[in-house]
Amino acid sequence: MLPKSPSESLTVLTDLVLPSETNPLNNLFGGELLARMDRASSITAQRHSRRIAVTASVNHVAFNRPIPLGSVVTIEAKVSRSFKSSMEIYLDVWIEDRKTGNRSKANEAIYTFVAVDDNGKPVEVAPIIPETELEKERFDAALRRKQLSLVLAGKMNPHDATELKALFS
Amino acid sequence: MLPKSPSESLTVLTDLVLPSETNPLNNLFGGELLARMDRASSITAQRHSRRIAVTASVNHVAFNRPIPLGSVVTIEAKVSRSFKSSMEIYLDVWIEDRKTGNRSKANEAIYTFVAVDDNGKPVEVAPIIPETELEKERFDAALRRKQLSLVLAGKMNPHDATELKALFS
Amino acid sequence: MLPKSPSESLTVLTDLVLPSETNPLNNLFGGELLARMDRASSITAQRHSRRIAVTASVNHVAFNRPIPLGSVVTIEAKVSRSFKSSMEIYLDVWIEDRKTGNRSKANEAIYTFVAVDDNGKPVEVAPIIPETELEKERFDAALRRKQLSLVLAGKMNPHDATELKALFS
Amino acid sequence: MLPKSPSESLTVLTDLVLPSETNPLNNLFGGELLARMDRASSITAQRHSRRIAVTASVNHVAFNRPIPLGSVVTIEAKVSRSFKSSMEIYLDVWIEDRKTGNRSKANEAIYTFVAVDDNGKPVEVAPIIPETELEKERFDAALRRKQLSLVLAGKMNPHDATELKALFS
Amino acid sequence: MLPKSPSESLTVLTDLVLPSETNPLNNLFGGELLARMDRASSITAQRHSRRIAVTASVNHVAFNRPIPLGSVVTIEAKVSRSFKSSMEIYLDVWIEDRKTGNRSKANEAIYTFVAVDDNGKPVEVAPIIPETELEKERFDAALRRKQLSLVLAGKMNPHDATELKALFS
Amino acid sequence: MLPKSPSESLTVLTDLVLPSETNPLNNLFGGELLARMDRASSITAQRHSRRIAVTASVNHVAFNRPIPLGSVVTIEAKVSRSFKSSMEIYLDVWIEDRKTGNRSKANEAIYTFVAVDDNGKPVEVAPIIPETELEKERFDAALRRKQLSLVLAGKMNPHDATELKALFS
Repeated sequence: MLPKSPSESLTVLTDLVLPSETNPLNNLFGGELLARMDRASSITAQRHSRRIAVTASVNHVAFNRPIPLGSVVTIEAKVSRSFKSSMEIYLDVWIEDRKTGNRSKANEAIYTFVAVDDNGKPVEVAPIIPETELEKERFDAALRRKQLSLVLAGKMNPHDATELKALFS
Repeated sequence: MLPKSPSESLTVLTDLVLPSETNPLNNLFGGELLARMDRASSITAQRHSRRIAVTASVNHVAFNRPIPLGSVVTIEAKVSRSFKSSMEIYLDVWIEDRKTGNRSKANEAIYTFVAVDDNGKPVEVAPIIPETELEKERFDAALRRKQLSLVLAGKMNPHDATELKALFS
Repeated sequence: MLPKSPSESLTVLTDLVLPSETNPLNNLFGGELLARMDRASSITAQRHSRRIAVTASVNHVAFNRPIPLGSVVTIEAKVSRSFKSSMEIYLDVWIEDRKTGNRSKANEAIYTFVAVDDNGKPVEVAPIIPETELEKERFDAALRRKQLSLVLAGKMNPHDATELKALFS
Repeated sequence: MLPKSPSESLTVLTDLVLPSETNPLNNLFGGELLARMDRASSITAQRHSRRIAVTASVNHVAFNRPIPLGSVVTIEAKVSRSFKSSMEIYLDVWIEDRKTGNRSKANEAIYTFVAVDDNGKPVEVAPIIPETELEKERFDAALRRKQLSLVLAGKMNPHDATELKALFS
Repeated sequence: MLPKSPSESLTVLTDLVLPSETNPLNNLFGGELLARMDRASSITAQRHSRRIAVTASVNHVAFNRPIPLGSVVTIEAKVSRSFKSSMEIYLDVWIEDRKTGNRSKANEAIYTFVAVDDNGKPVEVAPIIPETELEKERFDAALRRKQLSLVLAGKMNPHDATELKALFS
Repeated sequence: MLPKSPSESLTVLTDLVLPSETNPLNNLFGGELLARMDRASSITAQRHSRRIAVTASVNHVAFNRPIPLGSVVTIEAKVSRSFKSSMEIYLDVWIEDRKTGNRSKANEAIYTFVAVDDNGKPVEVAPIIPETELEKERFDAALRRKQLSLVLAGKMNPHDATELKALFS
C-alpha cells in the first residue's frame, strides 16, 4: 500500500459551544468534547483508510483549559502513525477570542481507530510518512505509546519494549 | 478529611442504545459511550467530593467489543484512588443479552476528575480506602498511572517514578 | 413459567439534569423525566420478560417536587406485578444534595409494559413473587389499579371489581 | 376570574416521527410521545392561565396503537377542567396515512398542570365552560378523576367522593 | 389530477423555545427555526402530494424579530402554488405573549419541496386553487418567484420571464 | 474600518451524517443541513465582525443532491460581501466518496447575518476585498441580490435597482 502524509487525512471541525453542552460552571462538558473529537477522528481515519473505521481506544486526553459557553471551537485531527489495521489519531483543539480573534490551544487528545470491512473485520491500512517537525515528533512518540499500551495490557514483555526501556534506564 | 470507600461513590447508569447513537455498523458510537461515561464519572466524583467536579483527563479507554443497537448498557463508576484534589474514576461497562440475561464486560475506562469550588479553583478531597481485592489492585495501579502520566507530561523525572522503574528494570 | 422476584429486574438509571432539559423555572422538564422513566421501565420490563417490551400505559405519575438544574437524579424501576403479557413497573425517583449527600424522594410513577415477540404480538411473562414489605404492598395495590383501569375503560363491570368495591362500600 | 372555553387554549403540535425517536420495532418510543405531550400540555396550560405552568401529574395514558417511523403525528391539547390553581389537560393524538390522508386516533392522555408565579408558588386560574358534547363529558369525568386521585392519595375519605360512590354503588 | 385548496394541506406546529435552542442573546437560533420550518413544510408537502417530499430549495426567509427563550412559537405552513412535481410552501411564524395572549408575526419563509416516489424520482402533484385574498396574492407571486429563480440559475432567458419584466420595465 | 479578505473569515465544518439526521429516503434532512449551515455562517460572521452575529435572512439555498447516511459533509463558509452592519455569507457544501476519496459539490447556499452589540443593536462591520476570481464574481452578484431583496421587500423602487435593470432590459 502506498504511504500517505498526515495532511492528506486532516479533518477540521469548527463549531460553537451551545447552551445544552455546558456543565454547571458554564463550560463545555468533557463528554461533549470527547464525542466531537471522536467524530472528527472517525472522519480522519476514514479518509486515511478509505474504509469504515471504529474507535479502538482513547488515551492521554488532557482537559487543560475550560471552554466557555459561546466559544468557537476548532478541532484538527490527523493520523500520526498507522500500525497494520490501526491508526493513531492526534487531535489539537483550539478556541478563539471573539473580540481579538486570537487563537489558543485548549486541548490535545489521542484516539486509536481500526479500519474494518463491511463485516467489521480489521483490514490493513496505508503507512504514514510524516512531513513537518511536529508530525515527525508525534510519529516517533506513537511507537512508545503503542508499546506502553501493549505492556499495560499485558500483551508485551516490558523488556521487549525497547522504546520505553530507554526512557526509564 | 475522613477517608471513604470506593463503594460510597458507586454510580450505576443503565440505559438503552438508541438508533440515533449508532455508527454505520449499527453499533454504539465510541463518542456517545465516552459522553455517557463522562456523565457517570462526574456523578461519582461529585459523590466522593461533595463538590463540583470537572473532567481533567481520560486515559486507557479500550473499546474491546462493539455494543449493538438496542443493547442494555450498564456503566458502573467508582473512585479508585484520590490525589489531593484529583480523583481517578474506574469504569466498568456491561452489556446483557436480552434472551438469556447473561451479562458480559464490554469495556473498561479510566477518567480523572478534579474537585473545584464555585469559582473553578481546585479543592482537597477525601482519601480512598479500598476494600475488595479488585479495589485494592486498582488502587495500587492508580499510583503507577499517576507517575506515568507525570513522566509523559515531563512533570516528573523518570528516575523518581519508583513504581514504574520496577516495571521496566 | 417460573416466577421471579421484583429485585431480579431492578434497573438503576443515575444521571444529571443538563441545561437543555430544564423549564423556565430552571427545573427538570416533566416531559424529560417521563422519557427517562420510560427508558428505565422498558429495561426493567425487558429484564423480567427477556422480550421486547413496549409501553402500554402510564398512570399515577405525581410530580411532587421540582428537580433543579445540576441535580443528580436516580431512577429505580422494578416490576411490581405481572398479568399474562403485561407488567406493572413501579418507579421511585430520588435526588441527592451535593453538599450533604442526603437523598430524598422526588417522585413515584407507575408504567405498564407489554412483552411482545418480533412481530409485536403479546407473549406471556413470568409471575412476580414479592419479597419485601413494600413489594408486597405494591403487589396488592397493583390488582386494584388493574381493576380500576378496566372499569374506567368500560371493560369491567364495577360490581365485579371486588378489590375496588371494598374501598367504597 | 372570567371563565374560558376549552377551545381558547387549544394547542396543535404536528410533527414527524424521526429515526432517532423509535424503539426496536421501528415505532415511536413511548417516552418520546410522553415528552411531546408534556410540551403541548404545557403550552395549553400557559394559554389558559397566562402563567408559567408546571407538570403536576400524568394519568391514564393508554398507548393503544404503535406509531410507525415516518408518521405524521398530530397532538391536540385542551383544558378539560380547572380546579383552583390546577388544570386537567386532555390530549388526543392522531396519525394520518400518507397515501390516503385518512386520520385515525392513536392515543388519548390526561396531564395535570399547576399555574405558578415567578417564584413557583401556585396561583388561581380561570374556570372552564365546556361547549361541545365531548367537552362536557370530559368536564364531568374530570371531577370523578380528581376525587379518585384524592382518594388514592389518601387525601379524601372514600365516602365523601360522591361522584365515585355512584359508580360502585 | 384534482386540484386542492391550500387549506387542505395546512400544518400547524406549536412548540416551545427550549434552553438548548438559543443563541448567546437568549433568542431562538436561526438554524433551529430553519429546521422546524423544514419539518412543517415537509408535512404540508406530503399532505398535498400524498407522497414522500424532499426539500428542493429555501428562499426569502427573513428573520425580522428575535424569538426569546420560553416563547410559544406557532408555525403555519400551506402550499401556495404547485408546479409539476414541485410545491412552493409558504410559512407564517407567530409568537404569543404569555401574559396578554397577544399573537404577533415573527417571520415568513418560503420553501420548495419536490414529491418523489420510493426511489426518489419526481412525480406529478395536484394543482392549487387559492381561496382567500392572501392565498391568491401568494399564488400569483409564486410564479414571479419561480421565474426569478430560473433566471438566476441561468435556466430561463430574462426576456421570457414575462412576470418579472413587468416589474422592471 | 480596515477591509478584510473573505479567506480571513473562512469556516470549515466537517462532520458525519448520523442516523438521527436522515429522512425516510435515508438522506440528510434538509432541516438539519440548514441548521449546520447556520452555525457555520454564524462563526464566519463572528470572525469577520468580531461581534455577536444573528441570522437576518436565508436566500437561494438549492438542495441539488441528496446526501446519504454516513456521508462525510464539509461546509465551507466565507463572507462574500458586507453592507454597513450586514454580511452576506456564501456556503459551499461538499461530500466525499469513502472509497475513492473524490469530493463533489452537493449544495450552495447564501445566508445574511447582522453584527450586533451586547444589547442586540446593529453595529458597523469591515468591508470585504475579494481576492480570487470566484470571490470577485460572488462579490459583484451580492449587490444584485441585495437590490433584488430590497425590491421584493418594497424597500427600493425597481427603477433605482441599477444592477437588476441591466439584467432585464
